[in-house]
Amino acid sequence: MKFRRSGRLIDMTNYFIQNPQRLIPLTHFADKYDSAKSSISEDMAIIKQTFEQQGIGTLVTLPGAAGGVKFIPRVPTEEAKKFVAELCEMVAKPERLLPGGYLYLTDILGNPRVVNKIGRLFASFFAERKIDVVMTVATKGIPLAYAVAQFLNVPVVIVRRDSKVTEGSTVSINYVSGSSKRIQTMLLAKRSLAVGSNVLIIDDFMKAGGTVNGMISLLEEFEAHVAGIGVLVESEDIEERLVDEYISLVQLKDVDVKEKQIRVQEGNYLNYL
Amino acid sequence: MKFRRSGRLIDMTNYFIQNPQRLIPLTHFADKYDSAKSSISEDMAIIKQTFEQQGIGTLVTLPGAAGGVKFIPRVPTEEAKKFVAELCEMVAKPERLLPGGYLYLTDILGNPRVVNKIGRLFASFFAERKIDVVMTVATKGIPLAYAVAQFLNVPVVIVRRDSKVTEGSTVSINYVSGSSKRIQTMLLAKRSLAVGSNVLIIDDFMKAGGTVNGMISLLEEFEAHVAGIGVLVESEDIEERLVDEYISLVQLKDVDVKEKQIRVQEGNYLNYL
Repeated sequence: MKFRRSGRLIDMTNYFIQNPQRLIPLTHFADKYDSAKSSISEDMAIIKQTFEQQGIGTLVTLPGAAGGVKFIPRVPTEEAKKFVAELCEMVAKPERLLPGGYLYLTDILGNPRVVNKIGRLFASFFAERKIDVVMTVATKGIPLAYAVAQFLNVPVVIVRRDSKVTEGSTVSINYVSGSSKRIQTMLLAKRSLAVGSNVLIIDDFMKAGGTVNGMISLLEEFEAHVAGIGVLVESEDIEERLVDEYISLVQLKDVDVKEKQIRVQEGNYLNYL
Repeated sequence: MKFRRSGRLIDMTNYFIQNPQRLIPLTHFADKYDSAKSSISEDMAIIKQTFEQQGIGTLVTLPGAAGGVKFIPRVPTEEAKKFVAELCEMVAKPERLLPGGYLYLTDILGNPRVVNKIGRLFASFFAERKIDVVMTVATKGIPLAYAVAQFLNVPVVIVRRDSKVTEGSTVSINYVSGSSKRIQTMLLAKRSLAVGSNVLIIDDFMKAGGTVNGMISLLEEFEAHVAGIGVLVESEDIEERLVDEYISLVQLKDVDVKEKQIRVQEGNYLNYL
């Protein structure tokens, strides 16, 4: 089928958006559209320009026989700031307060559009790092981990707190929860993570960091490396944080159960932009 | 900023792909591009034509003041058949066999690209139904549920087997697992589902259907309606299936632990195309 330029631009844009961080040989498009590589290169220049102007991301071209073009999703600083402010507003709603000072975040984490935006933000931030896999712990972090992994084009592995027969053999560790000081267990299916992997840890909430720290210990068992840590919400009132380097989008300042007030501020994400 | 047609086509395509099943007023684009509505209508006709030719989906235009345009993702029959065949091949790999005849599916469910394709398939199938929310049970069904929900532009609710303090008050039911005949509990946060919702149930695996049946009982507590049921893999050797109407992508025919053989066939999805 012969394509006009407009058709090619639409179809290529769809392909790039659906396949972020994937190296696509130019011949893929040249063959599909039965077009000269020079026309495809012109198309890509137009797409790259629009993607950059509109803050969608960029196209990176790698030359040579093994080369091709790769779409890297990006979130412009202004858009990131605006979205983090929206997140702060969402999290600060007093009706989220649960008995014991816990926060109900299930609706935020249940909204695929919000979750996808969070994923794009983290993926944009960690785009330059070498990441083989995104790791999270069941259950609440799972949608966030998938959203990030999708934009980074890498798989997800899920750490569990209980063993399941459908996981096969597992590696388990004990760790001390940072806030409650209780000893807990977490485990990961042996075959779900290759030795030496570079791992991005994603979670929904970090208090003292015991859970994240547990995941780091688990990674040592797989001789894997921490490529980065991203959390949606971190809580503030922590004497001793067990984890040093991490990126947060929202920081909980103060939860007043009696007055039904939640004070939040932007996480450290914006400091790095 | 003035846009040329090529820039508009690229930016609009990105917007549609990122916002499936969302009604977008024409003025959104006319304002953004500082263009006449007639130009935008021409752009949309080109995009619609390409989307349909390339099997991406379609654009539906609703007239009137409250109208606009909506992108409905679709999977063409040929592509669906090819993908289901690929899934069957993946599931049938003998190295998936775990002790007890269980199957290791974690790698398939951990691959965002595969998960997204599954999501697009189910969303395409259920596109005409009235669906307010996608429901699944923790843990393995979660990525599939989000993938489907994303293409349907609805939220996800997650049923749990244990109570969490961050969920607030919950509604719980007891149900009988279909295969092991054991009594089990599942629960859902009270505020996570509005009364009378139309719910699409998505899960990774169905044996006799006890878990799905449990979710249906739970929905009755919320006076909610089952809008559809979709499972990735169903197992065959079932005397009495507890659930009648469901869509499956892969059907397990026979698992021979001794010979290390897994026989699969296409699920009933293709019968409905």
